[in-house]
Amino acid sequence: MSDDDKSVLRAPRGMRDFYPDEMAVQNAIFSAWQSAACRHGFLQYDACVVESLDLLKRKAGEEIEKQIYSFQDKSGRDLALRPEMTPTLARMIAAKQGALSFPLKWFAIAQCFRYERTTRGRKREHYQWNLDIVDEQSVSAEAEVIATAVSALSMLGIGSDDAAIHINSRALLADLLDGSGIPRKIHGAVFLALDKLGKLTDAEVSASLESAGLSKENVEAAFRIMRLETLDEARKLLGEETESYRELLSLFSMLSHYKIDAMARFDISVVRGLGYYTGIVFEAFDKAKRLRAIFGGGRYDNLLQDLGGKPMSGVGLGFGDVVIAELLSASGRLNGISPTRDLALGYMEEAQRPASMAAAEQFRRQGRSVDLALRNQKAKAFFSWANKSGFVEAAFIGPEEVLAGEVRVKTLEDRTERSVALPGC
Amino acid sequence: MSDDDKSVLRAPRGMRDFYPDEMAVQNAIFSAWQSAACRHGFLQYDACVVESLDLLKRKAGEEIEKQIYSFQDKSGRDLALRPEMTPTLARMIAAKQGALSFPLKWFAIAQCFRYERTTRGRKREHYQWNLDIVDEQSVSAEAEVIATAVSALSMLGIGSDDAAIHINSRALLADLLDGSGIPRKIHGAVFLALDKLGKLTDAEVSASLESAGLSKENVEAAFRIMRLETLDEARKLLGEETESYRELLSLFSMLSHYKIDAMARFDISVVRGLGYYTGIVFEAFDKAKRLRAIFGGGRYDNLLQDLGGKPMSGVGLGFGDVVIAELLSASGRLNGISPTRDLALGYMEEAQRPASMAAAEQFRRQGRSVDLALRNQKAKAFFSWANKSGFVEAAFIGPEEVLAGEVRVKTLEDRTERSVALPGC
Repeated sequence: MSDDDKSVLRAPRGMRDFYPDEMAVQNAIFSAWQSAACRHGFLQYDACVVESLDLLKRKAGEEIEKQIYSFQDKSGRDLALRPEMTPTLARMIAAKQGALSFPLKWFAIAQCFRYERTTRGRKREHYQWNLDIVDEQSVSAEAEVIATAVSALSMLGIGSDDAAIHINSRALLADLLDGSGIPRKIHGAVFLALDKLGKLTDAEVSASLESAGLSKENVEAAFRIMRLETLDEARKLLGEETESYRELLSLFSMLSHYKIDAMARFDISVVRGLGYYTGIVFEAFDKAKRLRAIFGGGRYDNLLQDLGGKPMSGVGLGFGDVVIAELLSASGRLNGISPTRDLALGYMEEAQRPASMAAAEQFRRQGRSVDLALRNQKAKAFFSWANKSGFVEAAFIGPEEVLAGEVRVKTLEDRTERSVALPGC
Repeated sequence: MSDDDKSVLRAPRGMRDFYPDEMAVQNAIFSAWQSAACRHGFLQYDACVVESLDLLKRKAGEEIEKQIYSFQDKSGRDLALRPEMTPTLARMIAAKQGALSFPLKWFAIAQCFRYERTTRGRKREHYQWNLDIVDEQSVSAEAEVIATAVSALSMLGIGSDDAAIHINSRALLADLLDGSGIPRKIHGAVFLALDKLGKLTDAEVSASLESAGLSKENVEAAFRIMRLETLDEARKLLGEETESYRELLSLFSMLSHYKIDAMARFDISVVRGLGYYTGIVFEAFDKAKRLRAIFGGGRYDNLLQDLGGKPMSGVGLGFGDVVIAELLSASGRLNGISPTRDLALGYMEEAQRPASMAAAEQFRRQGRSVDLALRNQKAKAFFSWANKSGFVEAAFIGPEEVLAGEVRVKTLEDRTERSVALPGC
């Protein structure tokens, strides 16, 4: 094979192929997302992965804009592969704002693209589960979104031993910074510093805060805030009547009613970049914090900004397929996931094909996955193939089975058998 | 709202948004595809919608190549949105030909893009269900693929009253043309003419055949062939030992074993363009033939051509989401399809929120879709909202329900009620 031939056999750089074994994992993740969202009353929506570049430029952050795959169609329209679903959600809601019923609970499973120059094997596309509750001010929106995500994790076998949800509030942070006399216009620098904590040394963080305009006193105050470990410490600084504190308290209380408070913890360091979040923010990590965030989200107030719609507050969550697959793999939970192969059905002679087809149809009507052999073959070859192909059961029909009107269905793992009547016999 | 704002609210031209009602239809179609494929033993695969332009140029027909959405990434790679899944399938199989087990039965649900200049409201993207059986010479591959597609139709409520599968064989056609003395090198012109029958007048078809190099006698012979109405008429011309005839006969026999022969008919006019099909070809149409083909497919021999793999014969089928949705809509079968909204759960006072959350979790663990109200509200407002939002059931928890430890779950359509114990009471 020439080098040209070999390179044409590969998916484009950063894009993934899903062979059946990989697809089974993907389907398990998608299925958990879909089930959890449906059970929690979210309605599914979708839109084309191709969006207008204009929309994405209006709604996407500057960092993202540099990573957009954009192109022109043959009429010269500026199009792009969406880097995230939120601009599309905003567009769809703004277009029908008068006709939709609010608060609205929607979800999507959306492929998103970002061009990143990286050597770490990071992908340029992923699927992201998006949950949004739009036009609900109360913290019950945060509680429902988090509970739904925890439900999906639980369906995948991930519980409080494996992952934790780190919760903070940008409003609480702002209140704390206000209380320390740090001017609003340099809050952003502290948010950035929080994002860097643990990645940079304290000295480096100090230096960057000072260069952002914080006084020595401000920097000390910022460090005291950044080192808060519990919500109760924040209460002592703010007083228990402070709205941002009460919201977080209320959220933790709701999570306890859902019995998922064991997974949740206050974490002052969660700020979710400098994006559009305005209130409570959260991120889920594996317990060892070895991987990137499993999911993240928070409260936004400006979803429909720049789109001409009336302002609406809401809570959104994004949960990608890559990190969760890494976590499932690292914790050995992918082993049980393989394509559904219920029953292999073979036959000895062409003469038994009609009976075999009728039997296959009977099993299929019961909802079972049946792989009917495409040709007649010897029993030994058939069972050898069925064994190595991962079928749960196998049955082989010869002249005797047709005569007797029944076939033995063998469970391949434990070699037990059961007899099943052939239809029409 | 400015014109700019309005235009940014629309999906790009030819691309579709799926609001929850439309998504429910889409999910019903995808679910039928997925279930039918799984029941018939096909394994799911997928790949990124972005492919290398090089691959698509090697594998796609010239007509398609003009319609490809192509672009360069920021490293100057030539990429494209796939116009069809087959080149990707060929690439994935060729890349692992040694490791895969054949015959292979795979399916995908793939979004595909074609840029078409058209005023007929035709979309520029659609989802296509692809079924392929690769490396199987026998006509049992055609039978399994067709039976699987019929099974999906049946799950959607479409049977032999609504649709028919038109089956032909390009090999049989070639044999018939050979038998009439029409040289191989102008068979293509007759295939094209068959594609045009009914769209052009006979005189126009005659003229185009003559200009393609057929003699007057050839044209008459071609018309005799193009007017064959039954497979038996073909047998009379070819003799019953002719391989291409026997294959079709065998296929119809297998379809009768699957009890789907009532939907299948021989149709000499089906040729499936000038693409890569080499043997049996088929297309499904609505009975009135008002719509484009519901699905189409056939036998190919050159799947891995130009990719360096060893040649493999197979059968493929493509089944798009647009025509089937039109057919379901035209036959009133979309009426029952709406998003799943099992149960709305409301509560009178904030004090009943914890009990309501526990009740919601109990119903959700039973697999039900539960929309828990985000705020307390009056019973009247809650039931009014639940009624107009299309929920099957609704339940409302006040202080009395918490005290009694049970809640009445109302079926909204017939106003019947049942009592359900609240958890932990």
